[in-house]
Amino acid sequence: MSEFPSFPYLPLGPLPMDASGNRRFRIWAPSVKKLQLALLTADRPRVHEMKQEGDGYLLSEPLTVPAGTRYGYYRNGKHDKLYPDPASRYQPEGVHGPSEVIDLETVGTTDWRGRGLAGGAIYELHVGTFTPEGTFRAATDRLDYLQDLGVNILEIMPLNQTPGDRNWGYDGVLPFALFRAYGRPEDLRDFIKAAHGRGIAVLIDVIYNHLGPEGNYLPKFFPVFTEQHHTPWGSAINFDDRQADGVRNYWLQNVRLWLEEYGADGLRIDAVHAIKDYSAEHFLESLSTVADEIGQRQNREMILIAECDLNAPRYILPRERGGYGMSGQWVDEFHHALHAVVTGESRGYYEDFGQVEHLAKALRDGYVYTGQYSPHRQRNFGVPPRSDLFPAQFVVFLQNHDQVGNRMIGDRLSENIPEDKYLLAAATYLLSPFTPLIFMGEEYGERNRFPYFVHHGDDGLIEAVRRGRAAEFAAFQHEGHTVPDPQAKETFQSAKLSWEKNARVAELYRTALHLRAAAPTDYTFADISVDQAGTLITWTVAGSPYLHCANFGDAALTVEVPGRILLQTNGATRTDRHLHLPAWGFATLATQ
Amino acid sequence: MSEFPSFPYLPLGPLPMDASGNRRFRIWAPSVKKLQLALLTADRPRVHEMKQEGDGYLLSEPLTVPAGTRYGYYRNGKHDKLYPDPASRYQPEGVHGPSEVIDLETVGTTDWRGRGLAGGAIYELHVGTFTPEGTFRAATDRLDYLQDLGVNILEIMPLNQTPGDRNWGYDGVLPFALFRAYGRPEDLRDFIKAAHGRGIAVLIDVIYNHLGPEGNYLPKFFPVFTEQHHTPWGSAINFDDRQADGVRNYWLQNVRLWLEEYGADGLRIDAVHAIKDYSAEHFLESLSTVADEIGQRQNREMILIAECDLNAPRYILPRERGGYGMSGQWVDEFHHALHAVVTGESRGYYEDFGQVEHLAKALRDGYVYTGQYSPHRQRNFGVPPRSDLFPAQFVVFLQNHDQVGNRMIGDRLSENIPEDKYLLAAATYLLSPFTPLIFMGEEYGERNRFPYFVHHGDDGLIEAVRRGRAAEFAAFQHEGHTVPDPQAKETFQSAKLSWEKNARVAELYRTALHLRAAAPTDYTFADISVDQAGTLITWTVAGSPYLHCANFGDAALTVEVPGRILLQTNGATRTDRHLHLPAWGFATLATQ
Repeated sequence: MSEFPSFPYLPLGPLPMDASGNRRFRIWAPSVKKLQLALLTADRPRVHEMKQEGDGYLLSEPLTVPAGTRYGYYRNGKHDKLYPDPASRYQPEGVHGPSEVIDLETVGTTDWRGRGLAGGAIYELHVGTFTPEGTFRAATDRLDYLQDLGVNILEIMPLNQTPGDRNWGYDGVLPFALFRAYGRPEDLRDFIKAAHGRGIAVLIDVIYNHLGPEGNYLPKFFPVFTEQHHTPWGSAINFDDRQADGVRNYWLQNVRLWLEEYGADGLRIDAVHAIKDYSAEHFLESLSTVADEIGQRQNREMILIAECDLNAPRYILPRERGGYGMSGQWVDEFHHALHAVVTGESRGYYEDFGQVEHLAKALRDGYVYTGQYSPHRQRNFGVPPRSDLFPAQFVVFLQNHDQVGNRMIGDRLSENIPEDKYLLAAATYLLSPFTPLIFMGEEYGERNRFPYFVHHGDDGLIEAVRRGRAAEFAAFQHEGHTVPDPQAKETFQSAKLSWEKNARVAELYRTALHLRAAAPTDYTFADISVDQAGTLITWTVAGSPYLHCANFGDAALTVEVPGRILLQTNGATRTDRHLHLPAWGFATLATQ
Repeated sequence: MSEFPSFPYLPLGPLPMDASGNRRFRIWAPSVKKLQLALLTADRPRVHEMKQEGDGYLLSEPLTVPAGTRYGYYRNGKHDKLYPDPASRYQPEGVHGPSEVIDLETVGTTDWRGRGLAGGAIYELHVGTFTPEGTFRAATDRLDYLQDLGVNILEIMPLNQTPGDRNWGYDGVLPFALFRAYGRPEDLRDFIKAAHGRGIAVLIDVIYNHLGPEGNYLPKFFPVFTEQHHTPWGSAINFDDRQADGVRNYWLQNVRLWLEEYGADGLRIDAVHAIKDYSAEHFLESLSTVADEIGQRQNREMILIAECDLNAPRYILPRERGGYGMSGQWVDEFHHALHAVVTGESRGYYEDFGQVEHLAKALRDGYVYTGQYSPHRQRNFGVPPRSDLFPAQFVVFLQNHDQVGNRMIGDRLSENIPEDKYLLAAATYLLSPFTPLIFMGEEYGERNRFPYFVHHGDDGLIEAVRRGRAAEFAAFQHEGHTVPDPQAKETFQSAKLSWEKNARVAELYRTALHLRAAAPTDYTFADISVDQAGTLITWTVAGSPYLHCANFGDAALTVEVPGRILLQTNGATRTDRHLHLPAWGFATLATQ
C-alpha cells in the first residue's frame, strides 16, 4: 500500500553511462550533512555538489566522466581530505587514495550456464601467491593446468582492496574495489571469461562480517557498525539496527558487483556465524534471494558457500523450507577428523577428534558432532544433517588457507606427515561423497609454506599484528620455530607456490578427480562401515560403481571385496577375491 | 555411537520418593567444588555430602525426607550461608531463605485433553491483583465468571519466586519456586484442575531471557550467564556458550515443572528475541520438542505463545518447516495500530501507526510492517506472514499488562478514551480473525490502574528502580502526574481489580466472545476492505457467517450491506438493506 513506503535498494558508485554519454554518481551517506564529488581531471579537481535523493542517498547531476577518471568525495565542505568512494571499483593508489571510474561489460550475454555444486570439485587459490607474478593474467595461464587436473570450480581468496600490496584479503576495507596488486578489473573479467571457456566456474570469497583495521572510511559516511552485537573482530556489521537497510543494500550491491558486473558464478561467504542478524529475514536469505534472481535472469546457476562451523543445516536449507538458501557450506569438522587421524595432533580443537570412528562419522554425516558432547566446546553440539540435504552441499578439504596459514609457520601437511598418509588422506576426501576443495599446491605436494602476511601502513598496527601473532603461538615457540614476520615482504614471497611437483601426489589427485567426474556420487549420503579392528573404513554410495577402502592403521590388511582396482596408494594389490591393503593404504575398486 | 556421549538432561531438585519412601536430591553445580545438602529437621540441620554424578551433576544418597521438610545447600564446606536449591519448588521464607520439599501429583491421568489456539480466547491475569485476597484460592472462585464470560484459556503472569511479597513476576530468581504470596503449590495444582473442569486451559508466563536483580544465587552454582551476548537487562542467559547444556536442561526442566508436575497446558514465553542462541538447535526448538513430547505422552494439546515483536514467522512455524515450533505469538503491532487510531497517541513507537490503513493492514496480516519502512525503527521491518500460518497463531489485544503497566501511571484505556471508542476497539479485536487476549478487568471497563510495583529488600536497588522509573517518564511528568512509587505497598494495592462493572462494556465482551465461540473463524486470514473515505473497515472470513463493520471516523455512515445485526455498539441500526453506523460505531451482521 502506498502509505507504507520501503527503503529503496539502489546501485552505488559511478553508474553506467546513459545514451548521451553522461553518468551520475550515487552514494549512501546518511551520516554526512553535505557532500561534494571531486573529479580529478588533468588540470584541477572539478567539484560537484551531491544532491539528496532521499533515504540518505545522494546523487550527482549527469556528468561527462570517462572511464579511468579518478575521483573522491569531500565531506561537509572540507577540502583538506579527499575520501575514496565507499563503492569504489578501483583504487589505483591504494586504500587511502582516490577512486577510479571503471566501466565493465556485463556477462549477461555469455553462453556459460554455470554449474551447481553437484559433481563439483573446488580449487582454492590466492592470486598473489598462485603464480610468481601474482596477477590475474598470470593465473589465466594456469587454467589449462586446472582443467586437466579435473577441478571445475575455482574459489578465489578475497579480491577487495586491503591496505598495502600483499594480504590474504581478509583485511579489506573497500569491498567493491579490486585489489590493485592483482591487476585491473578488466583482468579479472577476462580471467572469469577464460575460466568459463574451460567449463570452470569462479567463486569469489567475500567478507560481510567485519572490515579491516586500516583505511576503513565507511563510518564517515554511514553507520556500518552496530553496538547491538559483537564479533571476535569487534563491533558487528549493522544488519538489524537503525539504518540497517542502507548497510544491507551496500553488501547486496557487492553481491551484484561480483555476479553481474564481473560475471562470477557465486560466492564463498566468510564466517557467516559472525553475521549477527535478528531481522525477520536474515541477511543471508536476502543475499541468496539476490543471487537467485541474477541467476534466473541470466539463466545461470549460482553457487553460495557459507563458511560455517555451527553444524546447523538451517544455513544450507532452501528458503522455502525455512533455511537461508546457501548452496553449501565448509565443513571444518571433516577436516579436523581427517587431520587428527593422520597427524595425531590433539591440541586445541583437535581434542574433539583423533579416532577413526570420528572420521567414519564425518564420512557418513559430514558433521562429526550432531548433538553429542564436544569436549572442546564443553557442550552438546550440532544437529544431524537432514535427509533433505545432499552431500554435495558439504564442502570438505584436507587443507585450506586457514588450516595451513593459521598454523604458526604456515606449514603444509606435505611437510608434516609421510607420503603414504598424505596420499591416503587425499584419496579419502577426494573420493568422499562430499564436494572436495583443494588448496592450491596440495594437489602436487607443494612444500612452500603459506604463512600469514599483511602489508599495513600504520606502525602501531603493524606492531600490534606482530605481537598478536607471537602471543597466539607463544606456547609453540619452544619447539624451535619462530613466527614469520607478517609484515615482511619475504614472508609473502615465501608463500608463493614453487610449482615443484611430487609426481606420485600429482598423479593421485588427477586420477581421483577424474574418477569423481566419471561418476558423480554426491546426491546420496554414503554407506560407511568400519572393521572390527577399527582401522579400515569402507564406503560406497547408492548408484555409484565405486567401493572405497581406506586403511588408517599401522598394519597391512587383507579383505574380501569384489571388483578391480581403479586407484590405489602405497602398493595396494589384489589377488583372487582379496584386496591387500598396506598400512595407511587406500584403494578404489570398480564393483560394476 | 558409544564413543560420542552426550551431556545428559536430568530432573533437578528433590526427586520423587522411591518405593521404600526414600528420595534423592539432584543439583547441577559445576561451579562448586564441594556441596552439602542441609536438611533443616526439628532439632538441628542434618548435613549430607552430595556426590558427583558426572557432567557437573551432584546426587545425594537416598534419604528419608517427607514433604514439607526445609532444606538448602552449603557451598565448599562453609556453613555460614545456606543457599536455596536453584530448583526449589517453594520458598516459605522468600528468595533468601531455605527451600521446602514439595510432592505434587502429576496430572498425566486427567481426562482433560487440552485445547489448541484455534477457537481460543485468552484472559491474562495477575494472581496478586485479580482478587482482593490475591491468591490462587480466591482466583478459583472466579472461574465460573470466566467461563460465563466466554474465555477458554487463562494466561497467568509469572508465578516464580521474586524478592518480597508483591511483584509483576518478571524479577524472578527462582524459576521453579511458586511465589509464596499466592499460596502453596497444591493451590496452583487445584486451581488448574478446577479450570480444566470448566474447559479452560491454563498457560504460565515464563521468563527464560533474564533473571531478577535481587536474590539470584544461580551463578554460585552454574554459569547461567554468558558474556557472548547481551540483552536490555544485561548479560544474556547462557544458551550457546560453554556448559550451556546444563543451563538449557535447567530451563527445560522448568518447562516440565509447569506442564507435567502442575498439569498446565502451555506457556507464554517472555521476550523470546532476548533468548540469544546461535546453536544449531535454537533453545525454543528444544523447548517446543519437550512440550510436544509431554503432550503426546499425556494425549493433551500444549500451547506455546512467544512474546515476539520481530514480525518473523520463523518463531511460529513448525520445526519440520524450519521454524521454532511455537503455537502462536503476541502481536504488539496489532495493538499499536488499534491503540493509535482510537487514542490519537503518536509518541514513541506509536509514530509508526495512527492511520486507519495501518489498522486494516493489522486486521489483514496480523503484522503491520511486513517489509516496509518503519520510521520508529528507522529500517524496513518484518516479512509477510506466510500462507501456511493460520490467524489463530496471532494473539492480539487491546491492552495487556505491559501496554497498561508500562505507562507512567498504569492508566487503562477505559479512563483515556470515550466509551464509544472503547467499545469499538474492543469489538474490533475480539471479532478479528486472530486469537484475542483480554487483560483482566478490561472486559467490564475496570478503572483501577495497573502501575508497576516491586518489593525489593535491598535499599540501593529500591532507589535505583525508583530513579529508573522516574527517569523513564521524565518527559511526561509536566503533565500533572507523578510516577507511583514502585516499592510502596499502596501502589500494589491500587492495582487490584475493583470489580466495579460497566454494564455496557461487560455485555459487549460477553456477546462478542460468545459470537466467536459459535463460529470459530481463525483458520483463514480475513478479507478486509476500507471505504473510500478511509474510515470504515469491513471484514469477513471465508466460511464465517459474520460480516464486521467498524467505523473509525467522526461521521456517521450509511452503507448497503446484507444481513441482520447480531452485535452493535453506539446505536448502530438497520433499515431495509442499509446499515446506519454512528461515528465510532461497530456492528456484526449475520450474512447466512
